[in-house]
Amino acid sequence: MKYSSPYVPPTLTVDAVIFQLHGDKLEVLLTQRESDPFKGEWALPGGYNAVGSTTIEALTEIVLRKTGVDLDNDLAYIEQLYTFDTVARDPRGHAVSVTYMGCSRAITLGTGSQHAEFFPVDRLPNLAYDHASIITYAQERLAAKLTYTNAVSGLLDKKFTLSQLQTAYEAVMGRLLDKRNFRKKFLTLNLIHETPDTWRDGAHRPAKLYAFNSSSLEVLSRSFD
Amino acid sequence: MKYSSPYVPPTLTVDAVIFQLHGDKLEVLLTQRESDPFKGEWALPGGYNAVGSTTIEALTEIVLRKTGVDLDNDLAYIEQLYTFDTVARDPRGHAVSVTYMGCSRAITLGTGSQHAEFFPVDRLPNLAYDHASIITYAQERLAAKLTYTNAVSGLLDKKFTLSQLQTAYEAVMGRLLDKRNFRKKFLTLNLIHETPDTWRDGAHRPAKLYAFNSSSLEVLSRSFD
Repeated sequence: MKYSSPYVPPTLTVDAVIFQLHGDKLEVLLTQRESDPFKGEWALPGGYNAVGSTTIEALTEIVLRKTGVDLDNDLAYIEQLYTFDTVARDPRGHAVSVTYMGCSRAITLGTGSQHAEFFPVDRLPNLAYDHASIITYAQERLAAKLTYTNAVSGLLDKKFTLSQLQTAYEAVMGRLLDKRNFRKKFLTLNLIHETPDTWRDGAHRPAKLYAFNSSSLEVLSRSFD
Repeated sequence: MKYSSPYVPPTLTVDAVIFQLHGDKLEVLLTQRESDPFKGEWALPGGYNAVGSTTIEALTEIVLRKTGVDLDNDLAYIEQLYTFDTVARDPRGHAVSVTYMGCSRAITLGTGSQHAEFFPVDRLPNLAYDHASIITYAQERLAAKLTYTNAVSGLLDKKFTLSQLQTAYEAVMGRLLDKRNFRKKFLTLNLIHETPDTWRDGAHRPAKLYAFNSSSLEVLSRSFD
């Protein structure tokens, strides 16, 4: 079909999948809907993108207003995730959502966030729209990125023990890893270095603290020469 | 800002970056614009996405109409690339473009394609909109994918020599690779296997033909256990 005037675009929305690590759980930031559709249910923070704003501008404004989280300053890392466009995903009509995925070190939600909360990804409440599948997609993307980038650094403090590193991997991948193999394989990637500092957890002997070599996203691409 | 009614969405468009390999050159499919803006210049095949069609549905219809290429049947591989949303990228007004990247084995453009042509990525004509930077982004994405997936298979015949494989890598990466290192490193990935067949190119002795183990996209993720 050719579109003769008037051309009618779908609604454009933006949504954020913001992960943090809490203990040994991967958590995602949700907001409770205050109006229909899906009133009272939880959803990714997001909303309309009107003409004149880029997707990240619209999203930054909406997430700050709905949750108090500042995408510019509170995140270690954010990237465009995917554009979801199933025609029936919003009961009000065809809405295309440009989504972003971010990682943050532990965030304390402030007073502007009475309807926002982090939930463990393995114990999510009922979610509005197709947001459950968007979160699954984001977690899979993050798990894949952990195998060829230093993206896990976005979930950890600047200095961390190898146990904390492994816990972060396990939380994202949703399964336990063998400690000896994990350490051996991870250390051969040359992404991290030992610091002079140690960390003591209760009665255990002090553990060495490590840091990532690069604070920006690094891709472990294979070179062919 | 909260958007009070009436909410006005940006225009939604879709564009395709379709690569093929021609000799030792990576080429991209372009169409010549028949009307303003940018009349007579070349652009990625694309157009409007109206309410009621998903992005890939709209794109499939547009690319077939403008170039004769059928995204469903002519490509080895296609994926959503990125959503470009700079407010001023279209002189007619704010238009957000959801882009896709595909790879095809050599395509012969048919009669429905008098305004469509493949151009080598290193000798592109003047391009409309921000399409030059979209092509650069797509080529970088494809080059990155070649380091951790079997995506190069989309550009090659089902059986190929190691020289043809290396030529494909060089075309995407835009630089020459050392033959011995390339072969050694690639073969350790265990993505391909020898076939019983050989290929003879003029006076050279026959070269072994290889095939990919998997015909679907395979990701070489590092395992940590």
